[in-house]
This record gives sequence, structure tokens and C-alpha cells, in this order.
Amino acid sequence: MSETPLLDRLESPRDLRDLDYDQLNQLAVELRKVIVETTAVCGGHTAPSLGVVELAIAMHRVFDSPRDRIIWDVGHQAYAHKLLTGRRKEFSKLRCYGGLSGFPCREESPHDVMNAGHASTSISYALGLAIARDLKGESHHILAVIGDGSLTGGVAFEALNQAGHLKKDIIIVLNDNGMSISRNVGALSTYLSQLRLNPRYMRVKEEIKDIIESVPVVGLPTDRLISSFKERLKNFLIPEFIFEELGIQYVGIVDGHDIPALERDLRLAAAAEGPVLIHVLTKKGKGYPPAERDPDLFHGIGPFNIKTGEALSADKAPSFTETFGRVMCDMARAEPRLVAITAAMKLGTGLDDFARLFPRRFFDVGIAEQHAVALAAALALGGFRPVVSIYSTFLQRAFDQLVQDICLQKLPVIFTLDRAGLVGEDGPTHHGTFDLSYLRLLPGMTIMAPWDQAELRDMLWAALAIQGPVAIRYPRGRGRLEELEKEPRPVEFGKSLTVREGEGICLLAVGRMVDIAMEAAEKLAQKGINVEVINARFVKPMDEGTIKERANRCRLMVTIEENTLPGGFGEAVAAMLERIKAPCSIVNMGIADKFVTYGKVPDLLHAEGIDAQAVVKAVVDAIGDEAP
Amino acid sequence: MSETPLLDRLESPRDLRDLDYDQLNQLAVELRKVIVETTAVCGGHTAPSLGVVELAIAMHRVFDSPRDRIIWDVGHQAYAHKLLTGRRKEFSKLRCYGGLSGFPCREESPHDVMNAGHASTSISYALGLAIARDLKGESHHILAVIGDGSLTGGVAFEALNQAGHLKKDIIIVLNDNGMSISRNVGALSTYLSQLRLNPRYMRVKEEIKDIIESVPVVGLPTDRLISSFKERLKNFLIPEFIFEELGIQYVGIVDGHDIPALERDLRLAAAAEGPVLIHVLTKKGKGYPPAERDPDLFHGIGPFNIKTGEALSADKAPSFTETFGRVMCDMARAEPRLVAITAAMKLGTGLDDFARLFPRRFFDVGIAEQHAVALAAALALGGFRPVVSIYSTFLQRAFDQLVQDICLQKLPVIFTLDRAGLVGEDGPTHHGTFDLSYLRLLPGMTIMAPWDQAELRDMLWAALAIQGPVAIRYPRGRGRLEELEKEPRPVEFGKSLTVREGEGICLLAVGRMVDIAMEAAEKLAQKGINVEVINARFVKPMDEGTIKERANRCRLMVTIEENTLPGGFGEAVAAMLERIKAPCSIVNMGIADKFVTYGKVPDLLHAEGIDAQAVVKAVVDAIGDEAP
Repeated sequence: MSETPLLDRLESPRDLRDLDYDQLNQLAVELRKVIVETTAVCGGHTAPSLGVVELAIAMHRVFDSPRDRIIWDVGHQAYAHKLLTGRRKEFSKLRCYGGLSGFPCREESPHDVMNAGHASTSISYALGLAIARDLKGESHHILAVIGDGSLTGGVAFEALNQAGHLKKDIIIVLNDNGMSISRNVGALSTYLSQLRLNPRYMRVKEEIKDIIESVPVVGLPTDRLISSFKERLKNFLIPEFIFEELGIQYVGIVDGHDIPALERDLRLAAAAEGPVLIHVLTKKGKGYPPAERDPDLFHGIGPFNIKTGEALSADKAPSFTETFGRVMCDMARAEPRLVAITAAMKLGTGLDDFARLFPRRFFDVGIAEQHAVALAAALALGGFRPVVSIYSTFLQRAFDQLVQDICLQKLPVIFTLDRAGLVGEDGPTHHGTFDLSYLRLLPGMTIMAPWDQAELRDMLWAALAIQGPVAIRYPRGRGRLEELEKEPRPVEFGKSLTVREGEGICLLAVGRMVDIAMEAAEKLAQKGINVEVINARFVKPMDEGTIKERANRCRLMVTIEENTLPGGFGEAVAAMLERIKAPCSIVNMGIADKFVTYGKVPDLLHAEGIDAQAVVKAVVDAIGDEAP
Repeated sequence: MSETPLLDRLESPRDLRDLDYDQLNQLAVELRKVIVETTAVCGGHTAPSLGVVELAIAMHRVFDSPRDRIIWDVGHQAYAHKLLTGRRKEFSKLRCYGGLSGFPCREESPHDVMNAGHASTSISYALGLAIARDLKGESHHILAVIGDGSLTGGVAFEALNQAGHLKKDIIIVLNDNGMSISRNVGALSTYLSQLRLNPRYMRVKEEIKDIIESVPVVGLPTDRLISSFKERLKNFLIPEFIFEELGIQYVGIVDGHDIPALERDLRLAAAAEGPVLIHVLTKKGKGYPPAERDPDLFHGIGPFNIKTGEALSADKAPSFTETFGRVMCDMARAEPRLVAITAAMKLGTGLDDFARLFPRRFFDVGIAEQHAVALAAALALGGFRPVVSIYSTFLQRAFDQLVQDICLQKLPVIFTLDRAGLVGEDGPTHHGTFDLSYLRLLPGMTIMAPWDQAELRDMLWAALAIQGPVAIRYPRGRGRLEELEKEPRPVEFGKSLTVREGEGICLLAVGRMVDIAMEAAEKLAQKGINVEVINARFVKPMDEGTIKERANRCRLMVTIEENTLPGGFGEAVAAMLERIKAPCSIVNMGIADKFVTYGKVPDLLHAEGIDAQAVVKAVVDAIGDEAP
């Protein structure tokens, strides 16, 4: 007999209505079982999804998806939603190449409203869909499920501001677990936790309402204030002002793991006119003790041992992330002006040790990349040396600040872009395959990409000596080195490095693509083709001298980058060679102006034609009959 | 005798302390006189600066700049600040090439804290400078002057959220004039105007405090709530919660044109611990009747007649902006799914007629570009055809939404980027010289640039037929056509247009650079050099067929674009020619990887080497001895 009989029987979310609450609670157990067992194998966002199992059930019972629209902010918490909307069978291929996306995905199901991935946009979507609905004269519900962490992102506030103004019927479900990805920060979070952490709150709330009715109101001036006095007094003692003042009605707090209570409040919200916010209290990682104990770690995790909750990876080599964290601590000791800024990614960017050792010099601004970069500009103006560590894909949020606040003012801020290039299972919303292009167009920006962990260390130290903005981008995961000696080596500004000698053919690779180039060189050597491999190191300024010299000497140059081709490194090299009318041929390898799906990185590199095999083929094709 | 004797006598803001209030009020008159007279000649942000004359005086009396740091959000309101900080003499060259910047500028004065230009970042700067100050153990005041319009920008909220959390001593001066650039929108604005528009507010405030003390509090549960009950009740009746709840102390409302009152509240704020917000009520355009009557028009204006307030420009040709506005109305009649979105730029983008004629299909989201783009994504998902009109430089704010919400989902949203290329007097923070690069790296984005107003019309209609994201970028000001016939002509997708025949040399120009190319072609013809001129029309997809064909036939190709060279059109053309090993030479003309200063557009084009003269020289140099 199946271990998940109730779940297996569901064909559509409508079937949920046939279950009683005992069965629904059992279904929640089954959903958690599948989520934990699947992510233990495939990796994934275990803790966020475990936190909203009951919420997903209640929403799909009260509302009628896909007619009613349920929008999951970020979308990493949508596993239960996927399982409840006809994707039980495919779920074992979660985040696998050709399998289910780890995020809501329109191509996958009509129940997925948008292709989510980046935080804080769900209220904008709800509002846009509500405007469309009303213009068309349709009638259905629209819900945005947004975490308290996502709510700190500026675009969420921009949308709240318009939502309170337009008074459209939308339901904002505030999934409040006190976490963004790491522990949530900021005044809004403090405010929410004041509500949350008052254990008497739920009980006292009703009591207060009664009491207020008995408070005599004497001597108030007879103006508009008095007429709504009791009403406002009620609101006052139930501290939901921040939303009410913005014109958003507030419902809550409701226990996010109590299905009947959730249903009651969702129905209340559905009946209201205008925008409503339901404040739902959930526990990240709920129901799986290792995830409850360490929701940070289980926010997004690779394969793990279900019993112990320990990651399966046995690799002891330091990841790029760990290397960055270590070197930051070393640099902080040597350079008292060094400060670090991250946007809700203390653990993800490897800054946990730094934060512990140098708490006064560490700033987690929450999910607020724009502010992170503007803050760094000000800290640089104030004489400090800020290092801003944000994933490649999320730094896109602060593009304007990079232009206006950093580069226009030529400020010495160091950006470390973790998760650059292909990130694997998180897929198109998370790949960092645009950064070389969007950074390269910035006047005065220096861009480096390390081949391995040691080079990352060296580049970080080198960046400290550069009197202007610097970006260092490096991939997710472990590099080729098993260990890292401590002593940094110098990095010559703007210079590439030949890492393998060869003749007549030059592979010019960026970052970890040097690994690919070296592997291709080995394979080519077996065919009797002896190619040179150059580690570009600098994407901007690029090493024009070396590249021109090689271009005049070689018959073929192949650029290899883990970045989109338009505006990327290879295009810059090709344009330069064209301007000097270099005799050699050029092949630009990279991501071909597209979004890349999810899957294991080697599979994706293969599919995109930037693995060693593809490089070998490109070289052989290009030299054609000239091959020895 | 001078007409501005008090102002002329000021050598530093410290001298303000020697003046009495009568003299200060007279000084305000003098400042307004200089601001109006100067902007009548140079153009500029007349109305914003007139609104904060007394505020600038009061701040410079209470605080000690540059030791104390005064940050002007956006910075277009800083003229009085400039005049008070030793720039009286240079002020006649406001916004002129080689003269004073129209915005705060660090290179210009130690009193200018940052190079401002884009909205909503001042609180981030204040916070960053406060962190730096405290880490260094220094002691001085830091003020951010931010408009109620700027406060709706997401990054301002992100910073408020951290400010309320870190509790640093900073003073936020909320310059509330009920306007952003157009009339301000959104729930926050409604909230602020509730405070503003209650005439009893100031009087009632004190009264209420007394009354509360007399309200008997009976029967409340003896928990934490009761201890702070009266305190909170006071706060409750004084509706400043939105800031208080975020941990920001609130002072106000103060009349922004009453210097003694401003000084009193600024001193109050200076004495407080932690972040304080002073709510200052100002009138945009104050003291100059035409600007008071039409603050929208006088937000930013060209030279005008002081007596009448009428613009001096006699040019009757429709600007690109006006053309866009007209065509939008035509298209709205033909396509009921068309909706328009702008971010506080209804007038600036030419959408005022559209807003009047189609109010249900028009959305001004305020200064909130990220939300504007995410909202458009949702409206497209809802079956509509959104047109998002945002200046080129401000669309940078929504770069991530362009990637994630528009292009990843392949949504048919049309972006119209006004003020693309060089905008002239507003300078480096406002030039739209990065858009071709940041748009070109987006998978699936179609990019067009019209030569003239008629082509803008044609491209707008053509965009409606494209089933994916489209961007059309066009410059500030008037195009070459005197009039616009109504009937649109078809635009063949992805095709360029030869606009002048020639032999052996091809000028390939983007947008209004076709004018430059035509002018250069005339000059070259006089030298006996007969060049072809091609209007590129499409930057993406570019017209590979035509370009390759010409490249194989010509000896020289010159690309001309009003955009930075890295990642731009010319680089893409050069890289393509390199890959096919085309025989012709190429010269890429554009902005050479830098920020461009302010001044008249023709002067800037000349300085950057992309005027007709420079093109002629480039051609003559390139063909060298081959010239006939």
C-alpha cells in the first residue's frame, strides 16, 4: 500500500473539499513526507515549503485555482502547491533536467500564475491581474503569498503603496516566519515580531475590543476625530497600523498550521472589499526536526541524509563561498576600513564567520539589494572599503545603483558576485549568466573572474588595492583545488595568464571555463592538436596587449565564458580583433542569448554547448582541413 | 547697487548666522529672484528649488555644513543650497557646458555630499554616512532631504526599514509638497495628505494630548499593554504611526516657509537620539506665480519668459514625446487591450492626453519603476498590451524586472524609453546612454530606435504586432520633421533602411544619429566621397543580412550610436563582421565608455566625437590615401 494514500488519490485541488479535517491533517503529513524525501534526493528549498503545507491546503480548499489566482512570491515555497495541483507523479524529478521546476512555472501548469524566482514582486502581480480582471469585468480572487522577508524588498512597498490607493480586491497572505532566508532584519521585522511574540496577543485581542466599548470618551473636540474614535481605538490596540495606514485591511494573526483557522480567515478576506492582508504565522521547516532546528541551512540544500539531516556531499575542498568568507576575515584583520554588506544572504555568501568576528563591520540589510549598494556608496564616501556580496542574479536588482551611485562617483566598492554562471537546479531565475554583460557596460568598473579558489583569494586582495569599483564573479560550488594555502599571490592589474602552452590555436577562457578549456586541450592533444590556454582573469579592462599579440600569431582564437554572448567577453574580444583586422579566426562560446533551464551544471554546460566536448568540436570544425 | 545685496555678501553658510529674520526673509526673496532669472535663461528645475528656499536657509543656519552633511534627494531642488554655499558667481552658468551642475556634485563643492540625480536614495546615504561616522567615533549631524514623491521609491523604504532598526542618529527632512513630479499618487501620499489637509491638526494635536490624560483607563488586563497605554494612545491620535512603527521618530508638521519654525524643529531633531523624521510642508514653485500655478510644467523647464512664464521655444514641430502621446491615443482607439503605465512622468512622457481620454487604462504608479514593470508583466499575463513609458535612465531601476518578469516570460510589453541618448543640460545622471547595451543583453528583447517622429509612430504600431517584449528608444526634443502625417507606414521586422545611396563606404547609424550621418554624407560629398547611409532601425535583432552584404562589398563601415560603446550596437556589428571575416574595415563611433557631462546636446556630441565633423574625419582618416 502506498505511504501517501490521500495525496495519491487527489486529481485536482477541488478534491480537497471532500476531505475532513482529520484527513487534511493526515494529508499534511503525507505532503511533508514527500517534500522531505524528494529534497533529500534532489536537493531543494525544504524548509520554506514545509512551512506552508497547511496554508497551501487551506488556500486550495477555500479558493478555486486556476480560476482564482494564487501567486507565490519567490516561489521556492510552492512544493505543496505543486503536489496539490496534479504534479504528484512528476515530483520525483523535482529540479532535474527535463523534470519539474523548483519554482512556479507557467509552462508546467495552469495553476502556476507566473515564473517566479526573485523576491518581492507578488503584490505587483496581484495588482496587475486585478486591474486586468476588473477591466475585463471578470470576477475571481487573486492571492499573493509573500514572506515577511520578501516584504522588505522595495518593490513590495511600491506595490503596497499603489494597492492601498487603487482599492482593488486582492488578498495578500503574509507568510510570517520571522525569517527571510537568514533571520530577518529591519524595523518592519521588529514590528511584526512585536505582534508575533506577544503570547497573550490572540487572547487579549478580543478582550480589548470589549473593554474599549466601556471606555468613556469625554471631552474630545466634536470633529471628525470623535466619530471614528472607538473604531480607531480598537485598531490602535491591535497594532496593525502599518498596513491600515496604507489603506490595506488587516486580518490576523492566524496560526499557519491550523487549517480550520486559516480557512476561516481566508473566507473573511474573500468576503471583504478592497485589498486585505492576512497575517499568517508559520514555522519554517515545520514537521521535520532538522529543518526546524536549522531553517537557514534547510532554506536551500543539496541532497541530505533524512535521518540525520546532514548534507551528503563528502567533498572537503573549500567552496568559492567558503573561500570568500575566510579571506574576508583575513582582510578585515589587515584592513580596519573593510566592511561587509549582504542582502539576506549571510550564510549563502559565506559571511557568517565575518559577522561573528566583526559584528560592527557587518551589515545584513535584508532583501534590499538597491539599498545595499547605495549604502555601500555612502560607506565609501565615509572613508570605508565596503565589500558587497550579492548573488549574480540578485545584483540585477541594484543595476541603477551600480550606474549612478557607484560608477558615476568612481567609488572604491568591491562587489563579490557569488552564484555567477550556471547555478544548476535552481534554473533560469537564478543563473548568473548576465553579469559580465551588465557589468561590462559600466564605465570604470573592473571585472575579474577567478579560475579557482586560490585565484579568488588573490583577486580579493588585489581588489583592495584598486581605487575604483571592482566586481569579482565566481560560481556556486567547489573549485578544482583540494586545499588552499594561505599566502595570497599578486594579481597583475588587467593581465591574463597563460596556463598551458600551445601553438597556433588559443583558448581564451573566463573563470571556471578555464577548467573546460584545459580539459578540451587534453582531448585535443590526443588528436595531435596542441592548443594554448589563457586564463583571461580580467574581463574589464581586458588584456588587450596579450590578446592582440596572440591574435596576430594564431590562426584560431576561441573565447569561452559562462555568460550570455550579447555584450559579453567574447563579443568584446571579437569586436577588438575586427577593429585591428587581426588575421586569426574567432569562435565565441557562451550562452546563446537565451534563458537556461534547470538541471545539473555539467548537463547544462553540455546542453548549451560549452563543455569540453563542444570546445573540441569547435576547434576541429574551425581548423577544418588544416588539422594536422 | 546690486539687486541681491544680502546674497552677494554671503561668503559661507556660516555668515547666515549674522542675519536677523527680516534679513533672512529678504534673502529668501533674493534667492528666488536669482533662481527664476537664471532658470529663465538656462532652463532648470525652477519649481522644486523655489519650494525649499527657506528650508535651505534654516538648515544652513542650524547645521554646520560641510561638517554636518546635508544630502539632497534627487538634487534638483538644491539651487538655494548652491547659492548659499559659495557658488553665487558661477550660478549664471547653471547647467551650461563647463559651468555649474544642475545637481549636487562632489567635484563642485565640499558642501555637496553626493552626485545625486535619481530619486529615493538619500536615506541610504544618510545611513551609510552615519555608520561611517559612528565607526570612526566622529560626531556630526547627517540630514537627508527627501520629497514625498521620492519616498514612494522602493529603495527609500528599504533604507527606512534599516534606519528604524539600526537607530543611528540621522535626520530625515520630508519635503512634502503633495507632488512627486506630477501630482503624487499612492496610499502613502493619501496618508500624508490626510495629515496635511486637516486644518485643525496643529491646534488639535496639543488639545488631544491633554484630553488623553483625563481618559480613565479601566478594566484593561494588567499586562505590558497597560503600562504604555497612555503613551500609545497619544501616539494613536497623532497619526504619525507609519514612521513611528518603523522606529523613526516623527516631528511636525512644520510650515516649510517659516524660517523660525523650521529652525525650532530642526533643533529639536538635532537634539534627539536615533532617527528622526521632520515633516515639512512646502509649496512647489513658491514665490513665482507661474510656477505656483503650474508646478508640473516648472518641475523642469527650458528657457522661459519671466513675465508670462511661457516657454521661449518657438519651434512648432512635434517633439518625440508629443508624437508618442498622440500615437498612443490613436492606438488606444484601435486596440482596446492597450494600457499605459508611467512612473511619475505623465507629462514628461507625453501621456497627459491619454490619461485624460482613457483614465481607466492609464496607470501612474509614482516613482516606482520596479513596480511599474512588474505590474506590466501581470497586465500582459491578464491579456492586455501594456506600454510602459519611462525615461531611459530611470528604466535602469527596473533592470531585474526586465530580465525576470518580462523577458524570461516572453511577455508582450512595449517599453518606450524617452530621453534616450544625450539629454543635454541635466547631465551624467540623466543621459540615456546605456540602454542599447542593457537592453541588448536581454534574451528575446526587440530594440528599435526611430530616426524621426514619423518613424517613432510607425515603430509603435509595429510593436503592437510583435508577440514579445519590445523597446523603442528615442531622444529628448524635436526631430527633423516639421509635421507629422497621420497614416503610419509599415516597418519590416528586423530590417534596416538605406536612406542615401553611396559607394564603398557605409555609415550605419542608430536613431537620430542618422541625422548626423546624413550631414556627414553631405560634407563628404563635397570632398568627392560618396557614402551610403543606412538607418539601422533595429538594434536587436540587427539586420544581419544587409550588414553582411554591405560588409562584403564595402571597404569601410562606420557605426554611429548615441550609446556607450561596450555592449552597444557597434560592438555587436564589429563582432559579427569579425566572425565572418568580412573584408571591410570598421569604425565604431559612440560614447567612449564614460559618463558625459552637461551642456547643450550639439556641444556634447562634438565633445564626445559623434557629430558630423567627427564622422567626416573618421571616414577620411580611415580611407587615408585611398581617398579620391
